[in-house]
Amino acid sequence: MSAVKNKILFFISIIFCLSENAVAQQDDSLMLRKIYNEILVNGKAYDWLSDLTKTVGGRLSGSPQAAEAVKWTEKKMKEAGADSVWLQEVKVPHWVRGEKEEGTIIRSDGKKEEVPVCALGMSVATPVAGITAKVIEVHDFDELKKLGEEKVKGKIVFYNHPFDQTFINTFEAYGNAGKYRWAGASEAARYGAVASITRSMSSSDNDYPHTGSMGYNDSLPKIPCAAVSTNGANLLSKILKEDSETKFFLKQTCHMLDSVLSYNVVGAIKGNEFPDEIIVVGGHLDSWDLGKGAHDDGAGVVQSIEVLRTFKSLGIKPKRTIHAVAFMNEENGLMGGKKYAELAEKNKDKNIVALESDAGGFPPLGFGLNMTDDKKKKIQVWKPLFLPYNLWNFEGEGDGADISPMTRKGLPGIGLHVESQRYFEIHHAKTDVIENVNKRELHLGAAAMTSLIYLLSRYGL
Amino acid sequence: MSAVKNKILFFISIIFCLSENAVAQQDDSLMLRKIYNEILVNGKAYDWLSDLTKTVGGRLSGSPQAAEAVKWTEKKMKEAGADSVWLQEVKVPHWVRGEKEEGTIIRSDGKKEEVPVCALGMSVATPVAGITAKVIEVHDFDELKKLGEEKVKGKIVFYNHPFDQTFINTFEAYGNAGKYRWAGASEAARYGAVASITRSMSSSDNDYPHTGSMGYNDSLPKIPCAAVSTNGANLLSKILKEDSETKFFLKQTCHMLDSVLSYNVVGAIKGNEFPDEIIVVGGHLDSWDLGKGAHDDGAGVVQSIEVLRTFKSLGIKPKRTIHAVAFMNEENGLMGGKKYAELAEKNKDKNIVALESDAGGFPPLGFGLNMTDDKKKKIQVWKPLFLPYNLWNFEGEGDGADISPMTRKGLPGIGLHVESQRYFEIHHAKTDVIENVNKRELHLGAAAMTSLIYLLSRYGL
Repeated sequence: MSAVKNKILFFISIIFCLSENAVAQQDDSLMLRKIYNEILVNGKAYDWLSDLTKTVGGRLSGSPQAAEAVKWTEKKMKEAGADSVWLQEVKVPHWVRGEKEEGTIIRSDGKKEEVPVCALGMSVATPVAGITAKVIEVHDFDELKKLGEEKVKGKIVFYNHPFDQTFINTFEAYGNAGKYRWAGASEAARYGAVASITRSMSSSDNDYPHTGSMGYNDSLPKIPCAAVSTNGANLLSKILKEDSETKFFLKQTCHMLDSVLSYNVVGAIKGNEFPDEIIVVGGHLDSWDLGKGAHDDGAGVVQSIEVLRTFKSLGIKPKRTIHAVAFMNEENGLMGGKKYAELAEKNKDKNIVALESDAGGFPPLGFGLNMTDDKKKKIQVWKPLFLPYNLWNFEGEGDGADISPMTRKGLPGIGLHVESQRYFEIHHAKTDVIENVNKRELHLGAAAMTSLIYLLSRYGL
Repeated sequence: MSAVKNKILFFISIIFCLSENAVAQQDDSLMLRKIYNEILVNGKAYDWLSDLTKTVGGRLSGSPQAAEAVKWTEKKMKEAGADSVWLQEVKVPHWVRGEKEEGTIIRSDGKKEEVPVCALGMSVATPVAGITAKVIEVHDFDELKKLGEEKVKGKIVFYNHPFDQTFINTFEAYGNAGKYRWAGASEAARYGAVASITRSMSSSDNDYPHTGSMGYNDSLPKIPCAAVSTNGANLLSKILKEDSETKFFLKQTCHMLDSVLSYNVVGAIKGNEFPDEIIVVGGHLDSWDLGKGAHDDGAGVVQSIEVLRTFKSLGIKPKRTIHAVAFMNEENGLMGGKKYAELAEKNKDKNIVALESDAGGFPPLGFGLNMTDDKKKKIQVWKPLFLPYNLWNFEGEGDGADISPMTRKGLPGIGLHVESQRYFEIHHAKTDVIENVNKRELHLGAAAMTSLIYLLSRYGL
């Protein structure tokens, strides 16, 4: 009998030794399972994204579609059960593509081959008749500099910098190639080029030009710049090797209009214990105009609304306040992100952390943590809760552009880190449509976000 | 000076303290980077898969396409640089779909709605005129049993067992639903049903019927069985709720022909230190006939050939012998897997481990390890080498069907474990085509396999 007694005492002592932490972890584990079940079975994110992309479509800042998307989001946040929904006024640039884009390779014998091109966002137009000039191909700025004015003047500079396929995370290849899209026109203009064309920033060989923002150096002439599809770039490069006298004809009609009054959309659930502490979760509502902005970043918007819906649907009353934010104008100005940060400062809002989803609706791998090491550790101890859902990487630091005006000032920032292999096939191209989004992958992202927001709302940071 | 001397001595001692293991790990880490670079930049797997699926197409065992695929694989293994390539004779069943498949919902008022159906593999045909009968819907075998002969006799049993969306790994949902496809016909026949139709084993609502093997219980009447698309199943279920007198018309012309002589294809690189120890890497060459067998399992075949190509291309001389095997007849018989095991036993081959890729050409998450704990640990210590490539999960146990005749007898088995969210949208359906394969994802799988085969060839198991 004494042995049995000992055993009983031993087990009782074990039970009492269970730290509060262990009990909390078990609670949390059960809650995460509930959140995942709710979203995988009843989630609305995919249907919402389908509706947004099909009924509203692409929604570049300043466009009628962007205005419609604001109304759409306001309505959906209310339907999702937000305690309150409001708009934040924000002035956004209004660049339009115009009606015509044309790119043609012209061999020295006059033979022509059309290739798919698109104006880069914020570029100026060509003259109405277009520009025809010889092409000089470079792979990087060093090559351009070595060629100098003598070889570049009067020509179209063709930046043919492909994605480095050896990066496992395709965002790194994107980062590497980015400067030729952003600064290529002005650098070419420095040596007297009349236009620049850039190999599309895509991980695959395809026939779609991929747009994206560029910026001018105000001290240099503003020349038109366009992206050519990766297949088009391969063709042009091949032809130039055979015939260095090859010319290119570029025509584009894009131009800037007056700024437009637009809006961030914010939906809130009020915290019941620390209502002043605010947790931000968001994505951006604007998108490029060529596709429908499904992955970029309709996904982040509907996932953020799904966070609200899931809290309400499961009857979770968060201790801290949650703001789901659909930011406006990430693609060509970041005015929405700046405005949210400015208003938060003005209103003395106590934002404690911000999570952004802007890497596409792909299977989540973990979270990028842009914060001090002690705060990182606080989140990293939750990793075992996420492993059953295939989130394992809590070591990266990438967060999101829209929250950067706050995180640059010290707010802890988090980015949903996803499997990136397919993103840059469709990014900023005609192919960013709902048909290329997988429902379960999108919903797994929403569930991961909701789970992390739940933990942050329970424990703070 | 003495402080400097001390420091130097300290560093020298550190260098000497580096265990052989640490040095080896660094070597291995560099070699894995080389393997990944080679495959991500120069990999041929995707182009091969494109060629196989487009010029040969779907290749069900016994079909002319399967015979063509054998020749295709033999040629590619030689091109990849295998030291030797040979065929293993294997008799395979030859089931054909025939020319006509038709499924129609007939309401009691005579109104008809056609739904997409396909015969399940190995099913018998309907009579030439088809079968028309009332439909009885069940969700599982318990329901069927409760209904009994009284309610089932003379009817068509409709198994409407959807995928459980709460599983994170969709293979678990597939596993759960599998028995209704495999055994549904005989269980329905037990109670006098005249045919059975099964909800397609798919994770999404779509318009494609998904085929797959079924088997008859020889003691019961053999009735025809078909799969209906998930959207078709949803529609039928809805109509049955409104009108329980609804009938279904099923017609299919599938039938068995005589067995056919076919082949496994084996390509080998001989080990230069322990040539008798054989490491098997493979996938299956046969596929269902509705699609082109791109993910299932052209992917595994071209990845296995890529292992050979990469060893040769990088000049890696493995210590142990590698067999890349394209198994025949996984889908409806497993005769190739059985034959390879039988010949290995007969020839007293010393196979030490087998790795199979048969879960689609999706981003790899890790490896399933079906082996004793001590051997598992030997592989699990390599996990840090794979983390930079997003392989983190070495805890599962799933390997592959083709290697199961060997692993059931104790051979350590490994399965490439991949992100499964999209697989069962296209699995065994018309949509299993190259357009749904991502080149980088396929190549990352090949690189993971080559890396593991490299480590196994260096260290054994």
